[in-house]
Amino acid sequence: MIKTISLPRPSLSDNTADADRLIRALKQELKTDRIGIELELLRELPVLLRKYDYHIRCLLFQDRKGYLLVSISGADETKPLIGLAVDLGTTRVVLRLIDLIKGNTLGESTFDNPQIAIGPDILTRIHFADTEGGLEHLHALIINSINEELARLCQTCAITPKDVYLLSLAGNTAMTHLFMGLSPHRIIREPYIPVINTPEIMTACKLGIKANPLSKILIFPNIGSYFGGDLIAGILFSGMNLSEETAILVDVGTNAEVVIGNRHWMIACAGAAGPALEGGLSRMGMMAGPGVIDRASIRSDAHEFDIHTIDDKKPIGICGSGVIDLAACLFLSGMMDIRGKLVPAACGNRFKEKDDMGHLIVVPASESATGKDLCLSQADLDSLKRSKAAMFTILETISGAVGLLLSDLKTFYVAGTFGCFINPKSAITIGMLPDLPLETFKPLGNSSLGGAVMALTQDCIKTIDAIRNQITYLELNVNQDFMNRFSAAKFFPHTDISRFPSVKQYL
Amino acid sequence: MIKTISLPRPSLSDNTADADRLIRALKQELKTDRIGIELELLRELPVLLRKYDYHIRCLLFQDRKGYLLVSISGADETKPLIGLAVDLGTTRVVLRLIDLIKGNTLGESTFDNPQIAIGPDILTRIHFADTEGGLEHLHALIINSINEELARLCQTCAITPKDVYLLSLAGNTAMTHLFMGLSPHRIIREPYIPVINTPEIMTACKLGIKANPLSKILIFPNIGSYFGGDLIAGILFSGMNLSEETAILVDVGTNAEVVIGNRHWMIACAGAAGPALEGGLSRMGMMAGPGVIDRASIRSDAHEFDIHTIDDKKPIGICGSGVIDLAACLFLSGMMDIRGKLVPAACGNRFKEKDDMGHLIVVPASESATGKDLCLSQADLDSLKRSKAAMFTILETISGAVGLLLSDLKTFYVAGTFGCFINPKSAITIGMLPDLPLETFKPLGNSSLGGAVMALTQDCIKTIDAIRNQITYLELNVNQDFMNRFSAAKFFPHTDISRFPSVKQYL
Repeated sequence: MIKTISLPRPSLSDNTADADRLIRALKQELKTDRIGIELELLRELPVLLRKYDYHIRCLLFQDRKGYLLVSISGADETKPLIGLAVDLGTTRVVLRLIDLIKGNTLGESTFDNPQIAIGPDILTRIHFADTEGGLEHLHALIINSINEELARLCQTCAITPKDVYLLSLAGNTAMTHLFMGLSPHRIIREPYIPVINTPEIMTACKLGIKANPLSKILIFPNIGSYFGGDLIAGILFSGMNLSEETAILVDVGTNAEVVIGNRHWMIACAGAAGPALEGGLSRMGMMAGPGVIDRASIRSDAHEFDIHTIDDKKPIGICGSGVIDLAACLFLSGMMDIRGKLVPAACGNRFKEKDDMGHLIVVPASESATGKDLCLSQADLDSLKRSKAAMFTILETISGAVGLLLSDLKTFYVAGTFGCFINPKSAITIGMLPDLPLETFKPLGNSSLGGAVMALTQDCIKTIDAIRNQITYLELNVNQDFMNRFSAAKFFPHTDISRFPSVKQYL
Repeated sequence: MIKTISLPRPSLSDNTADADRLIRALKQELKTDRIGIELELLRELPVLLRKYDYHIRCLLFQDRKGYLLVSISGADETKPLIGLAVDLGTTRVVLRLIDLIKGNTLGESTFDNPQIAIGPDILTRIHFADTEGGLEHLHALIINSINEELARLCQTCAITPKDVYLLSLAGNTAMTHLFMGLSPHRIIREPYIPVINTPEIMTACKLGIKANPLSKILIFPNIGSYFGGDLIAGILFSGMNLSEETAILVDVGTNAEVVIGNRHWMIACAGAAGPALEGGLSRMGMMAGPGVIDRASIRSDAHEFDIHTIDDKKPIGICGSGVIDLAACLFLSGMMDIRGKLVPAACGNRFKEKDDMGHLIVVPASESATGKDLCLSQADLDSLKRSKAAMFTILETISGAVGLLLSDLKTFYVAGTFGCFINPKSAITIGMLPDLPLETFKPLGNSSLGGAVMALTQDCIKTIDAIRNQITYLELNVNQDFMNRFSAAKFFPHTDISRFPSVKQYL
């Protein structure tokens, strides 16, 4: 929060000390009973107050007991006050710089999590953290990369890391632990105990972050080992915690995490869908990038695909949303049956056998950038089937757990970059998402980053804690009932076609 | 505070994180809604909790919003938990080590404030702090000397500075500022504004203190430039803030600071008694030490002094309490008149003129350790007269300000080492202290250190703040009325002898 205030000048009849004078005014202004101020700022305070003639702009960060005073400048000064939001993903890290005075984005930078060098998945890293010096190495990798990227990003925005006073970071529980240099050892071991759920606001330099030495960082709290701060940030960003209407939020990443609820209650389940989700949705297709097929449709007359590639480059591969679009096309055109098997006769010359497995040629070698056929293999489709069935089963289970039908939902948030590109119509067609009116689906984009940005520009730590405390975590019980539902969902779109009326009409 | 607790072990049905589990238990146990925990301790927490099987001893320091967790050890471990109380005087610094488990004193060390090398008085140091690098130099001097003495003291107590987890420090406002590296510039300049009145509990290593890296320090708050934390500590130590009966507390140091009050109200005045106290009470005599005359009486028949020297060494000089005793003897025996002038005829061969000034020989050269006569000069007596008159006038003024007579007071605390040695009977005889029953006077010793020790062993930050907030600071108005009273007090014991009945009987 930025607060411009004028202090009464000291006099013999009001000779309160400089710090106490400022704190008194801020307490009154902010209706709080605690204003924290660091020694380093205290040392500069007498000069600053007089330099600006007691008319100052204060940058404060709300913590759980009040506010922390982070910077003092002249009320009319143009000194930049910058915030840094961090989306700390297992695979990708996104930094976004926010001008805290104007509220706008200054710049953004995405880079690979350098811990990938240790292990692409979090499990490998957690094991590595148990080795001698392993935790320190993982900690240093992420801190150093953030520092380097921050420096670079600042340069492009014509500011310096010293201008960065507030930071917020959202990541899953394991990543957050590695970021803080806390052992993630028990996160993956029964009974799955993190070191901390709710970190205090801390001084960023304590973590090795090279922003302003006075800068403070809010690290989003987690609910447990399998429900991290990234999801809390996502919920904050969606606003579903404020709404009377019940909404569902699905974050499709390495795991599928689902939250259902409204301002009165929230139920979440995440990750541990057992073998059903093994492999995960993220394995569908390749990562989005130039030349990657992200959208596709079919000219039903000709069995011809209309494909779209990112940046309109010659196609080099297919990403998740493309796979879903293509699977929907294949199913509707009869090239794939309701079991998800390619139908060679219907595929015609697009069908080929390779390594004893059926393949559907999406783009022939002659038109692809790789010089090779771009295919969907039967294995790809089987994997998609398992993933979409798992997703649908989780959605069914969680809504059932609160006595709701999926059709009762008025808003369906799809988070993650995946959620941005996915075509809900296609996802419904393959039975991955429930058959709701298309306007029900709201892509949130990088909701984790969005929540982190909100934490910089609004006083929302209480809201964040409220979200955390409001959520009931539902351990997905992968029992016979779940497996039966899962089996029923392993058809396109479902064994019970009556649940997908919008698809049925085309069949 | 030390709290031994057992935590419920983590389970699938109670999988709160380690830190949150501990904090939850401590919050409940301590009836507080905030437990702070530093990153460094957080990093060790998972191992510590399991090593001690969730049965641990927590050392906590109360701050203004809850408690800070400073150390975790096994419930039955013998690891020392030590506190350090610091009395930060302008002239002398006293360190006392406290065993926080048993509550007893481990050791104590007194040393000269090394800033004396810059200037013996605080004014010189404040001016020096304005020069380039001056403040940093003064700050480093005191911090380094405390570190050195702490290391030495720890060695003699068979512990290490790393065992020191809690610190408390009481000093006057200027010394406290120099200790924190804050500019004292405005403390001596109208309108006399300190940088801070109420410092937060801080991590001691931030100040350069080489105790345990997690150690926390409470710095006693001040009321203003002229009423420091040393006095707040003194009031805390006296307990007058808890009593129904009105008491007065006098701290005789470089200035005479006076507090009058009870649990309902307190009025203080300090220092600025204008020209009356110039020179101060501290200029009376030399500093106490071996061979210094600290007590004296007279055999009225023979005009012979019975003197006592510290450590029973051959006399080398006279300290404050000795000067007061001697002045009382001189007055009662007629060797000094009610104006405080030596009466040559009554002094006999003890009188000598030197440099055109009367001197009274206390110890002849033949019996002194210096080989010279130890004398009280007329100038010494004049200075004593001004000092004692100032003291009495302040006492009269402050009690008058609250509508009390000095004779109404049931308890009269005399703080400071001076207070320990002073003979109230002599002080009454010369009219320095009011003529109250001798049992009214209670020497407190080093009350500043005493208060600092209390802050280590009891949760008293709220009491400390309450004392600070309860005190009304009375600016001593050195007006005609004050000067009239002062003039009346510049006689032995007073122009109005009826106010000193116990003295009158001997005259």
